[in-house]
Amino acid sequence: MRTDGRQTNELRPVTITAGVNKYAEGSVLIEVGETKVICTASVEERVPPFMKNQGKGWITAEYSMLPRATHSRNHREAAKGKLTGRTMEIQRLIGRALRSVVDLQALGERTITLDCDVIQADGGTRTTSITGAFLALCLAVNKLSTNVTFTKYPITDYLASVSVGVIQDQPMLDLAYDEDSKAKVDMNVVMTGSGQFVELQGTGEDAPFSRKELSELLELAEGGIAELIAKQREVLGEAAGLIGGGAEK
Amino acid sequence: MRTDGRQTNELRPVTITAGVNKYAEGSVLIEVGETKVICTASVEERVPPFMKNQGKGWITAEYSMLPRATHSRNHREAAKGKLTGRTMEIQRLIGRALRSVVDLQALGERTITLDCDVIQADGGTRTTSITGAFLALCLAVNKLSTNVTFTKYPITDYLASVSVGVIQDQPMLDLAYDEDSKAKVDMNVVMTGSGQFVELQGTGEDAPFSRKELSELLELAEGGIAELIAKQREVLGEAAGLIGGGAEK
Amino acid sequence: MRTDGRQTNELRPVTITAGVNKYAEGSVLIEVGETKVICTASVEERVPPFMKNQGKGWITAEYSMLPRATHSRNHREAAKGKLTGRTMEIQRLIGRALRSVVDLQALGERTITLDCDVIQADGGTRTTSITGAFLALCLAVNKLSTNVTFTKYPITDYLASVSVGVIQDQPMLDLAYDEDSKAKVDMNVVMTGSGQFVELQGTGEDAPFSRKELSELLELAEGGIAELIAKQREVLGEAAGLIGGGAEK
Amino acid sequence: MRTDGRQTNELRPVTITAGVNKYAEGSVLIEVGETKVICTASVEERVPPFMKNQGKGWITAEYSMLPRATHSRNHREAAKGKLTGRTMEIQRLIGRALRSVVDLQALGERTITLDCDVIQADGGTRTTSITGAFLALCLAVNKLSTNVTFTKYPITDYLASVSVGVIQDQPMLDLAYDEDSKAKVDMNVVMTGSGQFVELQGTGEDAPFSRKELSELLELAEGGIAELIAKQREVLGEAAGLIGGGAEK
Amino acid sequence: MRTDGRQTNELRPVTITAGVNKYAEGSVLIEVGETKVICTASVEERVPPFMKNQGKGWITAEYSMLPRATHSRNHREAAKGKLTGRTMEIQRLIGRALRSVVDLQALGERTITLDCDVIQADGGTRTTSITGAFLALCLAVNKLSTNVTFTKYPITDYLASVSVGVIQDQPMLDLAYDEDSKAKVDMNVVMTGSGQFVELQGTGEDAPFSRKELSELLELAEGGIAELIAKQREVLGEAAGLIGGGAEK
Amino acid sequence: MRTDGRQTNELRPVTITAGVNKYAEGSVLIEVGETKVICTASVEERVPPFMKNQGKGWITAEYSMLPRATHSRNHREAAKGKLTGRTMEIQRLIGRALRSVVDLQALGERTITLDCDVIQADGGTRTTSITGAFLALCLAVNKLSTNVTFTKYPITDYLASVSVGVIQDQPMLDLAYDEDSKAKVDMNVVMTGSGQFVELQGTGEDAPFSRKELSELLELAEGGIAELIAKQREVLGEAAGLIGGGAEK
Repeated sequence: MRTDGRQTNELRPVTITAGVNKYAEGSVLIEVGETKVICTASVEERVPPFMKNQGKGWITAEYSMLPRATHSRNHREAAKGKLTGRTMEIQRLIGRALRSVVDLQALGERTITLDCDVIQADGGTRTTSITGAFLALCLAVNKLSTNVTFTKYPITDYLASVSVGVIQDQPMLDLAYDEDSKAKVDMNVVMTGSGQFVELQGTGEDAPFSRKELSELLELAEGGIAELIAKQREVLGEAAGLIGGGAEK
Repeated sequence: MRTDGRQTNELRPVTITAGVNKYAEGSVLIEVGETKVICTASVEERVPPFMKNQGKGWITAEYSMLPRATHSRNHREAAKGKLTGRTMEIQRLIGRALRSVVDLQALGERTITLDCDVIQADGGTRTTSITGAFLALCLAVNKLSTNVTFTKYPITDYLASVSVGVIQDQPMLDLAYDEDSKAKVDMNVVMTGSGQFVELQGTGEDAPFSRKELSELLELAEGGIAELIAKQREVLGEAAGLIGGGAEK
Repeated sequence: MRTDGRQTNELRPVTITAGVNKYAEGSVLIEVGETKVICTASVEERVPPFMKNQGKGWITAEYSMLPRATHSRNHREAAKGKLTGRTMEIQRLIGRALRSVVDLQALGERTITLDCDVIQADGGTRTTSITGAFLALCLAVNKLSTNVTFTKYPITDYLASVSVGVIQDQPMLDLAYDEDSKAKVDMNVVMTGSGQFVELQGTGEDAPFSRKELSELLELAEGGIAELIAKQREVLGEAAGLIGGGAEK
Repeated sequence: MRTDGRQTNELRPVTITAGVNKYAEGSVLIEVGETKVICTASVEERVPPFMKNQGKGWITAEYSMLPRATHSRNHREAAKGKLTGRTMEIQRLIGRALRSVVDLQALGERTITLDCDVIQADGGTRTTSITGAFLALCLAVNKLSTNVTFTKYPITDYLASVSVGVIQDQPMLDLAYDEDSKAKVDMNVVMTGSGQFVELQGTGEDAPFSRKELSELLELAEGGIAELIAKQREVLGEAAGLIGGGAEK
Repeated sequence: MRTDGRQTNELRPVTITAGVNKYAEGSVLIEVGETKVICTASVEERVPPFMKNQGKGWITAEYSMLPRATHSRNHREAAKGKLTGRTMEIQRLIGRALRSVVDLQALGERTITLDCDVIQADGGTRTTSITGAFLALCLAVNKLSTNVTFTKYPITDYLASVSVGVIQDQPMLDLAYDEDSKAKVDMNVVMTGSGQFVELQGTGEDAPFSRKELSELLELAEGGIAELIAKQREVLGEAAGLIGGGAEK
Repeated sequence: MRTDGRQTNELRPVTITAGVNKYAEGSVLIEVGETKVICTASVEERVPPFMKNQGKGWITAEYSMLPRATHSRNHREAAKGKLTGRTMEIQRLIGRALRSVVDLQALGERTITLDCDVIQADGGTRTTSITGAFLALCLAVNKLSTNVTFTKYPITDYLASVSVGVIQDQPMLDLAYDEDSKAKVDMNVVMTGSGQFVELQGTGEDAPFSRKELSELLELAEGGIAELIAKQREVLGEAAGLIGGGAEK
């Protein structure tokens, strides 16, 4: 039995509010249980130096937590003067995951930066950031498409992410913070709408895991991600069908 | 006539939501027009090295804007590896202003850190941060007082802040961003509940100002701050009377 | 009665020595009591990136104290690897104040950097820096004008600065360090030759102040600044009349 | 057919030289094909602050590449003044993986730091670092055990790592650099001597992957890691049996 | 013939003014031609961590140039956020040289920091800093000795420094900036009052030099340093005899 | 008698292995006793900004020690976020010394960077780096010359370096670490094949030294450097004669 009474294969309540920022080209507030992340997508009509003159766009992400997003206050990275390894790892993951479902050629020479700012943290901030940032990205592309004619719709598939873990030999979906801290195995899974893996990061720091456990964890993740993608479709409404369509507009 | 139809002595709509963070000892979301700031108060049972062994507490503040709080995206200070001069100036101002209404002796050897994170910026982020942070501080002190017996209530007076400026020779209260950018004089005023000045920062970069203009600006600020303090009292409810009371509990 | 026997409305002795640096386009050593600041003006025939292609010039300032300018030695900011908030705040103030009396269009596409290096500090280093830097700026513009034909003289008015404060309920002019440390209100005032305010920064960290006190403080500041500008005129000699003249040369 | 003629399930030639550093408590030079890494283990009789007074030890790792370890020269991180996200990610991974097979209680209050310095890089530097660092760690523990009586042998299992990937729909073991750069899926696997997973990091940036592909990749990894552990046993010689024995000495 | 008409073995005019800083325990302004350096000595009653509990003192030095000490303005190291290699090299040299004539045991557990701030630079700033810093150190020790009873006088010998160089095959003493920039060999020499070498740093970047040239350069340096030490004796006056005396006071 | 039984004028065993890095244009592993340094030369077809448009090339060097190159582990400079003064001093020395024997005009507009990475340190790492880096540079120039026609061979003379010192009044050649730490005088000498000095850095921190001692030290250095240059010639083989030839190819 889980602290909050959930089944082992049950997500926490998910709420997504679109348009929470009046300046950003795309924005959502995503809440998964008590974890709350503001995701904004900012479009710039230029690409970073290493992408120049390739006729392609770029997607990048930044991640941060407010100092009091957690039980006790953390020092600000800006005050310390550098990003922690954890932050760098997470923002590299978010950017990489999003790029896997974007046709950079179709996007054209522009950069979309996804900012994931964790307002409150209760486990799963990186997976929640990916699920939310994907939506902010879609909203920004849709806004862009009112001015720009894409040769094809640049987003090729849905993308969402969830954590799974093993607690006292029981595989479970979507760990809250207190669960995460007692899990012997912890895995973050990113999948597409077509049910394929984009990222798989499993860690057995406290105890290694077997192929059988891996299998059960992936099963749980697939279920959770399917639910999250259904939520994403609801938020997108009519625009939901554009993704992966690739049709010329 | 102002862009949004306000009178020259009229504040933008002010909304304050208390308790927006489940971990912080005190927290509010303060909205002044389209400017939105999350203020959290975090209590630690120790003081910084320079305050050690004095039997006193400490109040400090940090200020930050989300990258897309503004029209175009700003680089994160954490990514740049240092705070801008503007940020340092603002957080020093917030801390100094709050300390002016706290009896550090009465607070005892603990530190309260006020984090002011600007979610969306439309002018007046520093004054809004002060008005909100004061409330977060009160909420944290009230929460503390359920466990700690203060010799006297450590908050000695109300505190709020507003900006004023001169636009085309017309003094105006509470400038929104588009007004601020065309003001020839820009002044931030911090006042107490007893109507005295705590901070006065006026700048005439584009044109200097006379004592008469100063007088008119201060008049406007006094009116605005009185309104803001009335809002603060509403939020505090029954606890409103404790401030400045100084009575032993 | 003040420690050094001054009247409440009396400046400390002011000595200004021009031409103290053989390389700088303009330079002064300004001494106000025991506070000593070397101000140099350096001209470069280019503007910073954000001012490019506007046909305008730029004025900027940097401020620093030698490590042993003060009673006990301070760590060098260069060794610590970053500027303190205090330094940033002061150098932003100096630059902003000077720009208020420069016609950047008339200056043309060049940058003048004012370096204010405090050799010895005894209160009022930021106000003394402004008063001295204004002169170094004038000297540099005068030197420039031997090679460059300005469409009009780029300096539009005199500029000087002084501190005022309230000590034991008595407003006083030009606080020395030991006075400053016991003042309940501390205010820095920057004014033009025509008697208008450019910057007003008042802080009542230890106790707030009333409008009446503010009035008395501004009175004192006006008197002190008029005296400082008289000193500036003496240093400039024949060139004193050029300022604000705006006549084509 | 692979560039170097290997089978899809074939490791590159592996050479391990122990004792390459006369000061380090444990050291190896590990060569996997043209990838060469010096791994040293340094023992200190103290633990980092966050581990104090727990009666436990700590294992940590650092990773770096010589500037010309790669085809074209990279800037030194020391000269740039900060670690890249990639470096942080890798050294966090190495430390976490090694800790999974160390009984920190049995190790006692000491820290072992594993430095993995890549002398030449041709793909798989992070996996090679793990395989080599594990050995340097064993050598250091063995050296320690001549002076210290452990209650049980602190290393609980073997540990090695290898990369696998999918190139043109063909899963392959141990990718060299030119293979890695054209792989659509790239996965790093860390396993124990008992055949369980410690870390699984799979990325399908260029194309997502299916559960079937995952299965084939894990198969290949299991084979490669078994071979690497056999090599480790050879290097350890008689001491090979101590690992996981846990017997009191 | 030298630009300024000096003989090849002639120093530039040397002026030393003691007591230029009202707070520092020792201070001088040293001028060698147009090179001007303020040297202050600051005493602290503690030693750095690596010198703790050895019953000894420590001498250290810092060096900096004002931004406009030179022909064209240099960026401040504090603004760049790090010291240049040149600065580090110079301040290490100054500290090492001074320590060679101090009996750290006799000094007792205190630190004296010598700050050498170059107000104007015209060649020889590092050698001028050493000559001046030695005096500031003596003045501080003499001031200390009014409160502290040293077992023996802690300064064991005089110390001064001068540059020499080869210009168009002619060895010359005390190079000014324009000479230095055309010298093919450049050497900084630090010597004691007893005529021995403490530091010798010769560089033939543009052309190597022979032992004969070296001999002639050292001859010149010996002459110049003897003159500088005579100047130091004048400044110290009656206290000149204490140095190297070592007698108990 | 020296710890390792050497004569006072005897070098430690010197071994030089060329071609240790498969990517670098030139590379050697140089071992002098237990001191081991990997030197690589990297060629880039561009020059740093300050050398642009002069028709000349540039030679620069970087120096680093692996964390466990020494008896006890040192913190990585990359982790600390800055280079130590010692590192900066050494890499400036290496670059300057190498440039003294390169005709930058003849080299053409390209940069050669010499990386000296100390794998194991037992005294003399900076002198060993210079001796090794010179060879890596020659190898890179020789490799370049297969594609580029130099107007003349850009390396004008041989270059090597050795340390000397005085231990218990006895001048000695090539100090190992334990000797270095008890030497009262420590000197690094860089000389050309024609027997002239390029750099001379002598320090008598613990006791100053006389001209006679200096003479004896230089004698020893000359002998040692002649031997090192003989070793360099062996490594270069047929290409040995090109150096200083200056003949058009």
